[in-house]
Amino acid sequence: MTQAPLPPSTPAPADELQAVVEALRNERRRWREAHRRGGDGRELPSRELLAGMVQCLSGALFPMRLGPPTLQPQHEDFYVGHTLGAAMTTLRQQAALELRHDARQRGDDAPSLEAAAELASRFLRTLPQVRVLLDSDVLAAYQGDPAARSVDEVLLCYPGVRALISHRIAHELYKLGLPLISRVIAELAHADTGIDIHPGATIGSGCFIDHGTGVVIGETAILGERVRIYQNVTLGAKSFPTDGDGNLVKGQPRHPIVEDEAVIYAGATVLGRVTIGRGAVIGGNVWLTRSVAPGSLVTQADSLAGTT
Amino acid sequence: MTQAPLPPSTPAPADELQAVVEALRNERRRWREAHRRGGDGRELPSRELLAGMVQCLSGALFPMRLGPPTLQPQHEDFYVGHTLGAAMTTLRQQAALELRHDARQRGDDAPSLEAAAELASRFLRTLPQVRVLLDSDVLAAYQGDPAARSVDEVLLCYPGVRALISHRIAHELYKLGLPLISRVIAELAHADTGIDIHPGATIGSGCFIDHGTGVVIGETAILGERVRIYQNVTLGAKSFPTDGDGNLVKGQPRHPIVEDEAVIYAGATVLGRVTIGRGAVIGGNVWLTRSVAPGSLVTQADSLAGTT
Amino acid sequence: MTQAPLPPSTPAPADELQAVVEALRNERRRWREAHRRGGDGRELPSRELLAGMVQCLSGALFPMRLGPPTLQPQHEDFYVGHTLGAAMTTLRQQAALELRHDARQRGDDAPSLEAAAELASRFLRTLPQVRVLLDSDVLAAYQGDPAARSVDEVLLCYPGVRALISHRIAHELYKLGLPLISRVIAELAHADTGIDIHPGATIGSGCFIDHGTGVVIGETAILGERVRIYQNVTLGAKSFPTDGDGNLVKGQPRHPIVEDEAVIYAGATVLGRVTIGRGAVIGGNVWLTRSVAPGSLVTQADSLAGTT
Amino acid sequence: MTQAPLPPSTPAPADELQAVVEALRNERRRWREAHRRGGDGRELPSRELLAGMVQCLSGALFPMRLGPPTLQPQHEDFYVGHTLGAAMTTLRQQAALELRHDARQRGDDAPSLEAAAELASRFLRTLPQVRVLLDSDVLAAYQGDPAARSVDEVLLCYPGVRALISHRIAHELYKLGLPLISRVIAELAHADTGIDIHPGATIGSGCFIDHGTGVVIGETAILGERVRIYQNVTLGAKSFPTDGDGNLVKGQPRHPIVEDEAVIYAGATVLGRVTIGRGAVIGGNVWLTRSVAPGSLVTQADSLAGTT
Amino acid sequence: MTQAPLPPSTPAPADELQAVVEALRNERRRWREAHRRGGDGRELPSRELLAGMVQCLSGALFPMRLGPPTLQPQHEDFYVGHTLGAAMTTLRQQAALELRHDARQRGDDAPSLEAAAELASRFLRTLPQVRVLLDSDVLAAYQGDPAARSVDEVLLCYPGVRALISHRIAHELYKLGLPLISRVIAELAHADTGIDIHPGATIGSGCFIDHGTGVVIGETAILGERVRIYQNVTLGAKSFPTDGDGNLVKGQPRHPIVEDEAVIYAGATVLGRVTIGRGAVIGGNVWLTRSVAPGSLVTQADSLAGTT
Amino acid sequence: MTQAPLPPSTPAPADELQAVVEALRNERRRWREAHRRGGDGRELPSRELLAGMVQCLSGALFPMRLGPPTLQPQHEDFYVGHTLGAAMTTLRQQAALELRHDARQRGDDAPSLEAAAELASRFLRTLPQVRVLLDSDVLAAYQGDPAARSVDEVLLCYPGVRALISHRIAHELYKLGLPLISRVIAELAHADTGIDIHPGATIGSGCFIDHGTGVVIGETAILGERVRIYQNVTLGAKSFPTDGDGNLVKGQPRHPIVEDEAVIYAGATVLGRVTIGRGAVIGGNVWLTRSVAPGSLVTQADSLAGTT
Repeated sequence: MTQAPLPPSTPAPADELQAVVEALRNERRRWREAHRRGGDGRELPSRELLAGMVQCLSGALFPMRLGPPTLQPQHEDFYVGHTLGAAMTTLRQQAALELRHDARQRGDDAPSLEAAAELASRFLRTLPQVRVLLDSDVLAAYQGDPAARSVDEVLLCYPGVRALISHRIAHELYKLGLPLISRVIAELAHADTGIDIHPGATIGSGCFIDHGTGVVIGETAILGERVRIYQNVTLGAKSFPTDGDGNLVKGQPRHPIVEDEAVIYAGATVLGRVTIGRGAVIGGNVWLTRSVAPGSLVTQADSLAGTT
Repeated sequence: MTQAPLPPSTPAPADELQAVVEALRNERRRWREAHRRGGDGRELPSRELLAGMVQCLSGALFPMRLGPPTLQPQHEDFYVGHTLGAAMTTLRQQAALELRHDARQRGDDAPSLEAAAELASRFLRTLPQVRVLLDSDVLAAYQGDPAARSVDEVLLCYPGVRALISHRIAHELYKLGLPLISRVIAELAHADTGIDIHPGATIGSGCFIDHGTGVVIGETAILGERVRIYQNVTLGAKSFPTDGDGNLVKGQPRHPIVEDEAVIYAGATVLGRVTIGRGAVIGGNVWLTRSVAPGSLVTQADSLAGTT
Repeated sequence: MTQAPLPPSTPAPADELQAVVEALRNERRRWREAHRRGGDGRELPSRELLAGMVQCLSGALFPMRLGPPTLQPQHEDFYVGHTLGAAMTTLRQQAALELRHDARQRGDDAPSLEAAAELASRFLRTLPQVRVLLDSDVLAAYQGDPAARSVDEVLLCYPGVRALISHRIAHELYKLGLPLISRVIAELAHADTGIDIHPGATIGSGCFIDHGTGVVIGETAILGERVRIYQNVTLGAKSFPTDGDGNLVKGQPRHPIVEDEAVIYAGATVLGRVTIGRGAVIGGNVWLTRSVAPGSLVTQADSLAGTT
Repeated sequence: MTQAPLPPSTPAPADELQAVVEALRNERRRWREAHRRGGDGRELPSRELLAGMVQCLSGALFPMRLGPPTLQPQHEDFYVGHTLGAAMTTLRQQAALELRHDARQRGDDAPSLEAAAELASRFLRTLPQVRVLLDSDVLAAYQGDPAARSVDEVLLCYPGVRALISHRIAHELYKLGLPLISRVIAELAHADTGIDIHPGATIGSGCFIDHGTGVVIGETAILGERVRIYQNVTLGAKSFPTDGDGNLVKGQPRHPIVEDEAVIYAGATVLGRVTIGRGAVIGGNVWLTRSVAPGSLVTQADSLAGTT
Repeated sequence: MTQAPLPPSTPAPADELQAVVEALRNERRRWREAHRRGGDGRELPSRELLAGMVQCLSGALFPMRLGPPTLQPQHEDFYVGHTLGAAMTTLRQQAALELRHDARQRGDDAPSLEAAAELASRFLRTLPQVRVLLDSDVLAAYQGDPAARSVDEVLLCYPGVRALISHRIAHELYKLGLPLISRVIAELAHADTGIDIHPGATIGSGCFIDHGTGVVIGETAILGERVRIYQNVTLGAKSFPTDGDGNLVKGQPRHPIVEDEAVIYAGATVLGRVTIGRGAVIGGNVWLTRSVAPGSLVTQADSLAGTT
Repeated sequence: MTQAPLPPSTPAPADELQAVVEALRNERRRWREAHRRGGDGRELPSRELLAGMVQCLSGALFPMRLGPPTLQPQHEDFYVGHTLGAAMTTLRQQAALELRHDARQRGDDAPSLEAAAELASRFLRTLPQVRVLLDSDVLAAYQGDPAARSVDEVLLCYPGVRALISHRIAHELYKLGLPLISRVIAELAHADTGIDIHPGATIGSGCFIDHGTGVVIGETAILGERVRIYQNVTLGAKSFPTDGDGNLVKGQPRHPIVEDEAVIYAGATVLGRVTIGRGAVIGGNVWLTRSVAPGSLVTQADSLAGTT
């Protein structure tokens, strides 16, 4: 990429650059000493390689829709096998990096590579079930949006579906003990869709997230089947318990439970380990920190009227 | 892209992979039978090719700003002609795919290719008017934002302008009968800007969408001239009528009408086929499901005070 | 990228294309005459080249985390020096373009190239301090989010951190007198993360923006140290003063001041030159246009109760 | 790719460019009228797409040597099937272009697409035999060159083997009636290796072409089994018969026959439909236009001594 | 591109690398002092940018054969104008670099940029005549090779034609006083085709170089019209005169003159400022250092019989 | 890359493809059993990665000529260190692959990775001397060719210099015990330049290979200082000794020794372990299988007169 040329300017003297290189080195050293890091190379999974892996998995799950445009139906199985093979090669490498990094953090011995390979194999076997769940999501979007003209349009266009493809992959990896890899995958989907689902969140079949920008679903949230969610909905935590030293206690259940067929409209915020009962409807912009009975309807006026 | 090497692990046995390939094939078959699909190849438009087409059209509309950095003003017309020619070649192919897909869905004969070529030609002829509308949008942003220093900065930086370039292109294609292609273009802009404008929405000249993340504008919304909209504004539907079988009735007018020079501040939600009168101002976070008279001012307090 | 072939269609006749090329030329001419532009080539900075520059600077700031996956710790300094050198070459060119564009807008003589080179050198020398600030942001995210497992995860995954890397770079360039380049960098981060921080905003150390989609922070906002902000928070302007001719007065202080350790929860909107006192907590969805005392807690009910 | 900037120069005026565009158009028109061409679009196969196809076929023939570096042995069959499928898609398109071009040249109706698909299928079925022949060539190189350390080195490094992979593919396509596609493939190999084998040439198993630069083997040449050839050897035509109008008669047998186990050393030139007998040895730089008995040895001195 | 992973090895210590960096710096300094170079940045034309320029020019000369596969005949002129414009932008930059380098070598002031722009304009105006010459070359190849089936095949496949496209471009630039740029273009063609034509060589219309690998045509060679040349032919210099200091005298006529319709068969070597008369035929492998009368036939036996 | 679309054809049925996949699998199995290979993954160095490594090394050796066009002289050392570091990372990996492959061939245990790292370090330390040798080659070309205008032109354009850069790198790797990697590098240069130098060949300083296409220099050849060689020269082996089983004896000295300042003109062939004495001149097309005294001149007539 070039641009219209300008008269040449004097480049920065090498000395000036050298001074900044040294100052940056000092800052790195300071940080590494403070956090007991460094000297041991690139020990973390790679965003770029994981992005490629998710693209492979998406293509393998929906070959004629998300695979290469030239793919012919007669060659689907070859494509699926080849692409899954490539994805597994990446997953084994990346999982080994995460396990090794984990062990180092804990001061343990490096784990065996068989552990990473075994995780990858277990992940592989979940894919048919992942496809079944995603089919239910596509159908839910088609049935839930009057603007949707066909299931094909839904799969090709809807960011909610793209976010769920990534989430259902990331969630399986999270359950297998790969929180970092699964988080990277979740954030790649967040950057693409504006939908931020923590890979720890449990989401039942037939989920429909419409428009989706600004949606946040926390780590310990549990969604039942056929739940419908609109843009800017937050299913978050209310407060963060700390231990005696004032450090956050990590991993506690702290996000809502949303039962089957509940609907949560745009901008609603639900915080804490509360339960939205089966079929309940939470209106737009509602602010909610209490449980809601099955079948009930909560509006913004309710939520401000002291009944929360 | 490579990473620090790890000791080699045992790759997944081919048998294991074969089993997953077969399970995925079964799930595809199940879906295709349920939805009467398959066996007929890649019949849908391509996200990647349409992204390239939109980039070509953006460059042809604003050659010295969105065209290649090396472009010289003396060569503008050659560039514009060449780039439009390439965009038209893509549009004809993609439109033919959409028309063929549509016909199959309805069980009709495949349409003639002349139909796709004719649509593309009609689209081509709308471009000068599209440029006039976009010029008015650029000017509106410059005049409406105290942080804007020049019209050039607006065109180069503002996501609202990028979203409107895509929308004004997509809307013409939508009117010509290409809902799927236009939706793909809209979703590409949504992923880029966080602004989700359905291609069916009608937007008058001089529109300014500031910041824009989380904006949702529905399929049947109608915006007049010089409307101003901030981040997280929703112009949505209130309820979805269903037919006797409980299926959604698709395509009904169900989104707001916003008259000339109305302003809708951040986070406001306007639902249903209501009318925001000329010059009305809707405050931030307002929740609104009723019409508003020209010139009126609605605040969040109003909207919660039972007047909605 | 190819697709399944279709029967060939008749391409658009050259005459038709020629007519559109001419019509577009006329629209460009009209615009350029109206805005006294044109004839002088590509005078603006390039989005693509600045994106590459930010990627180089990110790698130079965090070589083992955001640099190339193959980088070895022993080669860090060479990588940092080489990458900074490349970034400086780009910055000098792009700064010269912005200064020249500015001078033309004002009708001044073109500035000397030494001016651009001098700005680049001054920017270079800020980088060690930028790294120190970013380290404090990483730590704040790790300490503030119960879902964060390690500082590495934070740097690799958190969009708030990515947005702050871009912001802290852009803010230095803004202070050096390059508002257009810094705005392009800010919008690149906005497109990536959904977090829209104007490069003029002043942000103290240890800032944590969680989830982040829909956050808007205006040009004259000032944030103290250890401020925490959640998704969809707006720190905006309340009204835009105009001069006698009805034109906006640009550059006036018009956005909030947020003092140290304040927390602003999701969806809150704070408008105007108000002050959120040290340690104050602003609840979710609060709409606020007044100052708030240090240590106070504002909920949505408060904000609607007429106390604003 | 950019370079150190220079002061801006005045670009060519558009008028000047326009004049050259018109002059070039006139020259194209003159040529097209003279050769009765034009108006009918791009009717020829594509060099780039055929280069990709040959790369796919090479990978499918030798997956663990010429396939992607990440390929695992357990996934070979998926890779081979997927890659062959992609190659067949390209071949069907390109073959259809050649058949259509041919028909136009002859003034015939466009051929059915089934004809192209049938040719591709017939080609596909030759590949196992092509692999057997190539294995024999690899072995011949290993056994014939004292510098060769392993069969792996031969396959990875030897230009003679690369040329034969392309030739054996091209020759099958030539026999199926695709002379243009096969010629393009041959010339791609020629550019890569300096070895120019016309796709019409018939070459038996176990052929070894050492070094290879400057080798030319003509359209109607026939080589037996286990023939050895060194750099700069020409197996060419002696004279070109013309018809009554002085036009060349095309397609006549006019190149040498080389029987089994003959060896032709560097720089030798053999012209015309002569026969080099089984096991004969032709010395370096020999110029030969007569047949040679089996088992004989011809040196440069012989070839100049009036015996030719 | 990744490969099967290996156990990690200890990377080279930074010290070791530092020592080699310093040793290389010393060698560069030594060379630059010896040749009075350095300190002044990249002053030379770029191989990559010139390769792109030649590709643009080839496409502009033969748009439907060497332009992009998607080009439609109706859009040819737009493509040609756009592509020539891009090529001229590159040529102006590169020519300015060469002129500046030249001036530095001579110790002159830097030349005006107008000089480079003027050279580019003069080059541009030669292109229609270059196309006419190339058409004659294509026709000569078609008429001269019994294996050629159509003029399209010749343009698509024949390395001799590719070499002449580059040569006829390079020769115009050489005549305009850009010996370095033209030499780079010649060597790009040499690498692609094995045909090494110095850009200074003068070649008449209707030239046919068959097969071509190993052909060398020297700087001051002059070829008439309709000359035919086969692989491995050298038209070289016999001896290099030196001045009083033993330095080579550069630029003297020292290569052969080949008159119209002469034919030179494979492997022939013609050295010195001799003349091959009109219609003469030089046999394969002939070694010739004397002039040859029009219409004569020279065989290898003649050339060795003392008549040379 | 797309082309003008054609009507869709029926793709090959999956069954047909499956049959060919199986037949190819059988042929692979047959070969692997015959050559005791397989099952153990990709054990060989990668052509693509080694090509990248050579490009890095070329840039590190001549940063302002063969490095990136944007490189500034002030940043040379950072670039050199960074690029050498990347090249060493690749070399360590590739060397480990070659050593492991070797050990498997011999049935030995896999070598330690330290062995590969040690080889890479030893290679690194040879680079300053490699640069000195290459400087002498550049100077020899400049002084030896009347068409050369500057040392810069020589480095930028001359294929003989490009071939020697690769050879001098490959030769160091060959001496360190990496024959396969060095051979791949040699063949990459052969494909680029038409000059085929076996990495085992020993070449003194100040070597000039002019034009170069078709040059072949064998594994055990030894060239003194300031040797000059023209296109199509072969320094080859005369006969290949076999052992008792008829297998070639590998690695024996079998190629010529060329003493200082000898000159060998185009097309000459020198075979066997003969010695070309200091300052001898071998004429064009000479065929030589005997030693030649220092200072002598051999012409083609001599070589055919029985004196060979």
